[in-house]
Amino acid sequence: MFYPEPLAKLIDSFTRLPGIGPKTAGRLAFFVLNMKEEEVLEFAKALVNVKRNLHYCSSCCNITDVDPCRVCQDKTRDGSVICVVQESKDLVAMERTKEFHGYYHVLHGAISPMEGIGPDDIYIAELLKRLGDDKVQELILATNPNIEGEATAMYLSRLVRPFGIKVTRIAHGLPVGGDLEYADEVTLTKALEGRREL
Amino acid sequence: MFYPEPLAKLIDSFTRLPGIGPKTAGRLAFFVLNMKEEEVLEFAKALVNVKRNLHYCSSCCNITDVDPCRVCQDKTRDGSVICVVQESKDLVAMERTKEFHGYYHVLHGAISPMEGIGPDDIYIAELLKRLGDDKVQELILATNPNIEGEATAMYLSRLVRPFGIKVTRIAHGLPVGGDLEYADEVTLTKALEGRREL
Repeated sequence: MFYPEPLAKLIDSFTRLPGIGPKTAGRLAFFVLNMKEEEVLEFAKALVNVKRNLHYCSSCCNITDVDPCRVCQDKTRDGSVICVVQESKDLVAMERTKEFHGYYHVLHGAISPMEGIGPDDIYIAELLKRLGDDKVQELILATNPNIEGEATAMYLSRLVRPFGIKVTRIAHGLPVGGDLEYADEVTLTKALEGRREL
Repeated sequence: MFYPEPLAKLIDSFTRLPGIGPKTAGRLAFFVLNMKEEEVLEFAKALVNVKRNLHYCSSCCNITDVDPCRVCQDKTRDGSVICVVQESKDLVAMERTKEFHGYYHVLHGAISPMEGIGPDDIYIAELLKRLGDDKVQELILATNPNIEGEATAMYLSRLVRPFGIKVTRIAHGLPVGGDLEYADEVTLTKALEGRREL
């Protein structure tokens, strides 16, 4: 090895992250070498804390450091709507719109027979428990618009039907700023199907 | 903030690294969240160790965890040649060629009046000390082929002349696999100047 061991180990750790190859890892490791010691310590602490201090919210299964999570704690939200998302980052994306004021449920995955992920492997049971509460009137399914996400949405809508709760799916169509010319046929078909009167 | 604090802190730490924006940082932080705890601890330890256990070699100023560094410890190398590079990563690049068997000297920078870096700000004094030794017969200047690197090479060659040591500069020319058509004029001029008889 050309690198001294501590440097080689850090390069190795960086290489395990997604999208970071050996060259980038080397560049990052040399950057760390020239960082202030307190910044590096903070970085190291942040890594450990993420692993140690975060867990799933007992209500919505979102990743959180307090229980219930900050969203579930927020009493100003509309308790009649639950938006179901696949991952915590999807919740964050949803929150960024500032348009949704209900509560969430994070599934941590989607049903995927290809990868051997069934309904019991994601947090569906926890969702059903919450629906027993009479307050919930609408379930918005905001899983990803791909095969796994659609399958999960379909499964959930059938599962929830007996509860007498309105189940909706977020719209499929052309993304804003997109180009009709470059849209794929499926998206365009969905956009046509979902057309609304102006 | 949409993210729980430990996650936000890790994202912030990742954002400080070069070439990593908030989106990539978020993706990396979520990846860390799903990594095995021992891997994360190893990562955190590697970060701290790089900062704590690495220092400059007392002889060649290379970054090392032992003193003298592994290159300087290697007695099979040719003590009559010293190759001067700007950074430790340049030394690594040089070692990868497996063509150089002498010792190195790492300057940790180049003379740059624009950035206020003078000869005293890089490790030139340490180099001169090594030249006092009669063994050194050639100094190969392998600083970068840009303004700062050239200036540093020029400065060093004048400084070392009184020692009666042969001073050479690595060749400038077309990179292997390159294309004459796309070469800039300066490189092409250098390639012409440096032509050799076959």
